[in-house]
Amino acid sequence: MTDTPRLVRAAVLLIGDELLSGRTQDTNLQTIAKYLAPLGIQIAEARVVPDVPETIAAAVNALRTAYDYVFTTGGIGPTHDDKTADSVALAFGVGIDVRPDARAILEAHYKTTDLNEARLRMARIPEGASLIANPVSKAPGFQLGNVFVMAGVPTIMRGMLDDVGPRLEGGAVVASRTVRGRGLREGDLAAALAALEAKHAGVTFGSYPWFSPDGYGAHLVARSADPAALEAAGADLLALVRNLGVEPEIVES
Amino acid sequence: MTDTPRLVRAAVLLIGDELLSGRTQDTNLQTIAKYLAPLGIQIAEARVVPDVPETIAAAVNALRTAYDYVFTTGGIGPTHDDKTADSVALAFGVGIDVRPDARAILEAHYKTTDLNEARLRMARIPEGASLIANPVSKAPGFQLGNVFVMAGVPTIMRGMLDDVGPRLEGGAVVASRTVRGRGLREGDLAAALAALEAKHAGVTFGSYPWFSPDGYGAHLVARSADPAALEAAGADLLALVRNLGVEPEIVES
Repeated sequence: MTDTPRLVRAAVLLIGDELLSGRTQDTNLQTIAKYLAPLGIQIAEARVVPDVPETIAAAVNALRTAYDYVFTTGGIGPTHDDKTADSVALAFGVGIDVRPDARAILEAHYKTTDLNEARLRMARIPEGASLIANPVSKAPGFQLGNVFVMAGVPTIMRGMLDDVGPRLEGGAVVASRTVRGRGLREGDLAAALAALEAKHAGVTFGSYPWFSPDGYGAHLVARSADPAALEAAGADLLALVRNLGVEPEIVES
Repeated sequence: MTDTPRLVRAAVLLIGDELLSGRTQDTNLQTIAKYLAPLGIQIAEARVVPDVPETIAAAVNALRTAYDYVFTTGGIGPTHDDKTADSVALAFGVGIDVRPDARAILEAHYKTTDLNEARLRMARIPEGASLIANPVSKAPGFQLGNVFVMAGVPTIMRGMLDDVGPRLEGGAVVASRTVRGRGLREGDLAAALAALEAKHAGVTFGSYPWFSPDGYGAHLVARSADPAALEAAGADLLALVRNLGVEPEIVES
């Protein structure tokens, strides 16, 4: 067995009253997780918090000490309910003010008459941070230590990730094999699946039932940072499903 | 001004590796938030944690002491990766075993030959808990203290909520008014919106930009537990949008 690099673990912090009230359906967690996985970074925890500076700051501090990286989304726009930049400054105990480089980005984008006090709030950057480029609407995010502060709007957040990715040092890449079986019932396969988990060291197995108007079944997933172990686990998953009289479909590899 | 009842605050704990890997897009947080709001219960925080008993138990304990209620989803099926019931027992420091009333529910649903050891895991209930009815697939959830443990599959979770709702004691109902303005740019309205927040005590205002292939704009939202204050705030939101030369649409009331 070769040495596998260590697991690099990150947290996602989703910020905004609208996520907790149910007004807005988050999709950023999934986007971030799928972007980071091939880079060798696993999301180990996510939190959703309201637009309350002390609450945001406490979550930032809890997560940045517990994980290798923290990725936040939301709360960096021009309106009074955008409190993330100040909250991150509060968490790190540093000052925050309009910064020339961030201001220059806004000046290049907005007409002089449009660059009012509200929009200038988007150039307020905590001391010591580096900017994160925003290819969609220009107002930057920022990185402070191991914390990456991004926009909440999904298209903008996704654009910012492309400037974040190259700054990250990933570890082991955890890959997965997913097998789908129509008509599979979890209770019928549970014992065999548990036996696979016991057999394959370094592989975790999950079972996810699905129900749709035209039927039901389960997805069986093997995950591992060890490609050879994953290969063997995937073959055993296929055999497990066939043993139950179901022809398995490979969903992704 | 009449006395308004206190705000009742809850947390949602979403459990499962599949949510953190990006395999599964959560929708349960939004469903729970929308179900509870009319009952006078606000979601104040949400967390997503992996299928690790100590991690689940720590989150349950952090949240149940900080909020009036905790609602968990996921991890109560028959397979080895379903660890929520044991984790909640661990959090409360109580025992867990197959319980006759839960077992009877499964016996009435499954053929005797199908009720194997794996399916019987779904009758393992922590000491002192009461069952939560599952109108979809029968295997029950449970309530222990202020913690409500529900399934992860969205249709099953939604079914369980109907047995949870009557057990909850709500407080102030926070309602909202949402105004949509096509072509609104947040930077143009930020100062006026901040002025409304300063003017209307007990009302919070949010601004949520949207971008679509055929245009852009913003939703402006006022939220309050005080119906009269909300009514006045909603009228001011309409006026704010009209003052910017945009005809507002009322999205919900």
